[in-house]
Amino acid sequence: MKEIGGGVCAAKGFKAGGVRCGIKASAKKRDLALIYSETVCAAAGVFTTNRVKAACILVSQENLKGGALRAIIANSGNANACTGEAGIAASRRMTELAAEVLAIEPAEVAVASTGVIGVPLPIAVIESGIAALGNSLSADEGGHAAALEAIMTTDTRPKDCAVEVEIGGKPVRIGGMIKGAGMIHPNMATLLCFITTDAAIDSTVLDSCLRNSARRSFNRITVDGDTSTNDAAIIMANGLAGNPPITAAGAEREVFERALEALCVKLARAAARDGEGATKLLTVAVSGAKNEDTAEALAKAVASSSLVKAACFGEDANWGRILCAMGYSGAEFDPAAVDISFTNGDGTRSGAGSGGEEAVVCQGGASVPFSEETAKRILSRENIEIRIKAGAGAGAATAWGCDLTFDYVKINGSYRT
Amino acid sequence: MKEIGGGVCAAKGFKAGGVRCGIKASAKKRDLALIYSETVCAAAGVFTTNRVKAACILVSQENLKGGALRAIIANSGNANACTGEAGIAASRRMTELAAEVLAIEPAEVAVASTGVIGVPLPIAVIESGIAALGNSLSADEGGHAAALEAIMTTDTRPKDCAVEVEIGGKPVRIGGMIKGAGMIHPNMATLLCFITTDAAIDSTVLDSCLRNSARRSFNRITVDGDTSTNDAAIIMANGLAGNPPITAAGAEREVFERALEALCVKLARAAARDGEGATKLLTVAVSGAKNEDTAEALAKAVASSSLVKAACFGEDANWGRILCAMGYSGAEFDPAAVDISFTNGDGTRSGAGSGGEEAVVCQGGASVPFSEETAKRILSRENIEIRIKAGAGAGAATAWGCDLTFDYVKINGSYRT
Repeated sequence: MKEIGGGVCAAKGFKAGGVRCGIKASAKKRDLALIYSETVCAAAGVFTTNRVKAACILVSQENLKGGALRAIIANSGNANACTGEAGIAASRRMTELAAEVLAIEPAEVAVASTGVIGVPLPIAVIESGIAALGNSLSADEGGHAAALEAIMTTDTRPKDCAVEVEIGGKPVRIGGMIKGAGMIHPNMATLLCFITTDAAIDSTVLDSCLRNSARRSFNRITVDGDTSTNDAAIIMANGLAGNPPITAAGAEREVFERALEALCVKLARAAARDGEGATKLLTVAVSGAKNEDTAEALAKAVASSSLVKAACFGEDANWGRILCAMGYSGAEFDPAAVDISFTNGDGTRSGAGSGGEEAVVCQGGASVPFSEETAKRILSRENIEIRIKAGAGAGAATAWGCDLTFDYVKINGSYRT
Repeated sequence: MKEIGGGVCAAKGFKAGGVRCGIKASAKKRDLALIYSETVCAAAGVFTTNRVKAACILVSQENLKGGALRAIIANSGNANACTGEAGIAASRRMTELAAEVLAIEPAEVAVASTGVIGVPLPIAVIESGIAALGNSLSADEGGHAAALEAIMTTDTRPKDCAVEVEIGGKPVRIGGMIKGAGMIHPNMATLLCFITTDAAIDSTVLDSCLRNSARRSFNRITVDGDTSTNDAAIIMANGLAGNPPITAAGAEREVFERALEALCVKLARAAARDGEGATKLLTVAVSGAKNEDTAEALAKAVASSSLVKAACFGEDANWGRILCAMGYSGAEFDPAAVDISFTNGDGTRSGAGSGGEEAVVCQGGASVPFSEETAKRILSRENIEIRIKAGAGAGAATAWGCDLTFDYVKINGSYRT
């Protein structure tokens, strides 16, 4: 597997574009995005588990029932959530507008929205921008970049990734974009993520690969514990790579799923790092748990703790809060068997250790003497990794979050105004 | 029921005191507290559900098995949590020291600690302070105040309450003190709370009254979603009021439990208001839910949401976040039947409305036009009440929290240092 450029335009036969139609108050920022495939795609999506689902989620779920799509239209600046029947009609209208300009069927279009909740979607400005949106489509990296800009809200940077793997002798590309940056908490899917691939793959297999990948990526990041009404991760596979179609389990599916998972983890980690107000990426790597579910529950509880997050911001090696968060996670473990250390890294071998230092702060559930200076130096760096051995089991899982900062409060104290 | 002064010394036959023994770095602050009854008390406690329990919790649970106590010893500045076998020995030693100075049995003493986790408890300084602690005991309000100061950590103000009711023709007093102010999230008990009463009451009935009261008070407040390792609420009843002993259900038990609940609610609300960095008390009153459990889950989810809390700090009427939090609460409700309004109050009739304004911001799950000016004025006041009608059911519950501020981050970024 190698990383390549191009984002959602990296795979053959995909185009993307983005324009400013006027949903966002800013006169400069793009707010309407389109991703399009020349041919019909096998498609799958994972969506928020919030009982309050934005209108676009309901419409996309409906259109994904057949496992086929050709386009995704998305806007930022308005979530189209808590907008009643008019909201549903507006989301449907977005699929119709995209279908018209692309000369495809509305049922072949998924729709996503992100932004403020509870404000009617200004569908007229989307109608007025749709022709320009169609004209903005491009298979170049610029098309990808314009679409990505158009789905960003409080994100401080574009977040994307593309990879290439060989399947059945053919190069297969997978590319994606993600937007954060608040109201992020793992629950089935999270945030907006659009992925394209030219792999030939059955939609049922694709769905299963996406769910497995989401579990170990989007579902393992947290910014503030709030599960959004609009979370969606959607993948489209158009088959233009020409690989022998992946229709069942086997080595080829394995290669595809590993690549998809790696891509999703990279995107998810980037979203956590770009959490609202964040100055640091927080990686919590749990091993030695009873099983993967237990390890996941422990890792997520620690990554979600406001107190742990604030301590990382303040560079305070207050490890008791880590053990405390494990304790209220609901997961089964023996507190007296826990070891905790701080190091620098992002949970991957490639991201390991600026400085290579590690400070062991807790052994067997109790304090051990450690150098406050070393700990503080580790915590002052951008990639903080908390390593937890929860006992002697085989279960391991990694979760990602960020520090809790003054700027998180600032951003979210005046989001609408 | 009338409010009276005196705190834990309001009830007959109780004394309290507090000294500075040197656990806290500050040379001025008291850090060791004692509460004592002249006669043996029926006693009960509710404790943290965190799997990681401080040593003092385990020792107090052991000593409460018989349902009788005569004293509580408590320290601040060190939680004696994650301190292994030595921690258990230190908590036992605290009960022995109290027993010695009071000439009672160690098994008649409950013990509580609060402060930093994972640092060995400096038992020698407690030993050196125990004689002074014994001498500090007083039945006056000053004794109560000294004990209360000695259990405070990041609390900005003392929080106490005492009430008097008539039971069987006799005046019965109940008084309590509580300490906050972070690592607070409802789960069985929360924070440290000590309550004394001169009611004559069976320990089994007392236990049941405390559990019921805790459910509607301590378990309905949240500051940061972190359930502490040290949460404990302990009540001692010495019977000196001379009322006919309450041994079963009936009108007298009802009067006692209502008074205890009112006291606990008042203490819990004070703890929420004094949440770390808080500038506002946040009251979430849910009605119309399927049942009380559902209403409670909805109210707690809203009061716990970082995004709702930050919006209250920023005086931003971002009600979509409220509906969103309800949606991920796990509770069953129909989003399309939800009405939401902002007003000022603390959930009690007496705390209602500075200004008496109410801004209805959501009806039937969707936005309604409202005056941003009125909403901002309401949100600029100290007591914000979010009123939610979740449908047409009979279930109601109120939860309390506070806003999320720059100071929360500041306090918790450098707690140990």
